[in-house]
Amino acid sequence: MSALNVRFRVDFNRACSLGPGKISLLRTIGDCGSLAQAARILGMSYRRAWLLVANLNKMFDKRVTTSATGGRRGGGMILTPFGKSVIVTFQRLEKDLARRANPRLALLSKHVAIRDKGKTNLPRRAMSRRG
Amino acid sequence: MSALNVRFRVDFNRACSLGPGKISLLRTIGDCGSLAQAARILGMSYRRAWLLVANLNKMFDKRVTTSATGGRRGGGMILTPFGKSVIVTFQRLEKDLARRANPRLALLSKHVAIRDKGKTNLPRRAMSRRG
Repeated sequence: MSALNVRFRVDFNRACSLGPGKISLLRTIGDCGSLAQAARILGMSYRRAWLLVANLNKMFDKRVTTSATGGRRGGGMILTPFGKSVIVTFQRLEKDLARRANPRLALLSKHVAIRDKGKTNLPRRAMSRRG
Repeated sequence: MSALNVRFRVDFNRACSLGPGKISLLRTIGDCGSLAQAARILGMSYRRAWLLVANLNKMFDKRVTTSATGGRRGGGMILTPFGKSVIVTFQRLEKDLARRANPRLALLSKHVAIRDKGKTNLPRRAMSRRG
């Protein structure tokens, strides 16, 4: 049986939370060096991506991104060292929690009756567009 | 510093997931013995609650709820032993994962700049209605 996917979300307090959505946006910005391109890749509006990044930059006492104006990649957006450490912390923890959760969910997993329909590797978003 | 709240969601596969929403619905049904009342308590529509329970009952090869027709609480809904075990498994795991996550998020937590605004114990839903 393949490993279960365990996603998690941390509420630092009622006004301040961090989950898979913000982390994947940060990671994609880090990969492509542009907010607009990251939004396109993730299929979200530029406005939504902008608001999420603005929220992240307010959430901590250090910025997670900075603009790369004037450099070779002028107009882009890059991650700060703190932004990178947020991703790394989250991803390490996610792996660790999934490893821990898997054996404890094995019994429930045996009773799962709904199986994956397709044999494709389409992402969830593409799957739901089909129906 | 108070403990962080860590919520998690398990994807058994692409068509089948279990998270805090379904678990709190199940727990509330178990507490009050009625789907309609559970929906009211959680502030969700009866239709949404009904769909979530229908999904849970299809998701596993055992039912999680059963109707309590004919008994003293005729017309109600009660949890099956399997339904109860789903809740217990999830909640134990949630506690365990939170305990494990807390020390590893301490460093990020120190940098959180947005603090809780109010000193009330209002739930999240009530807070957001204020604005």
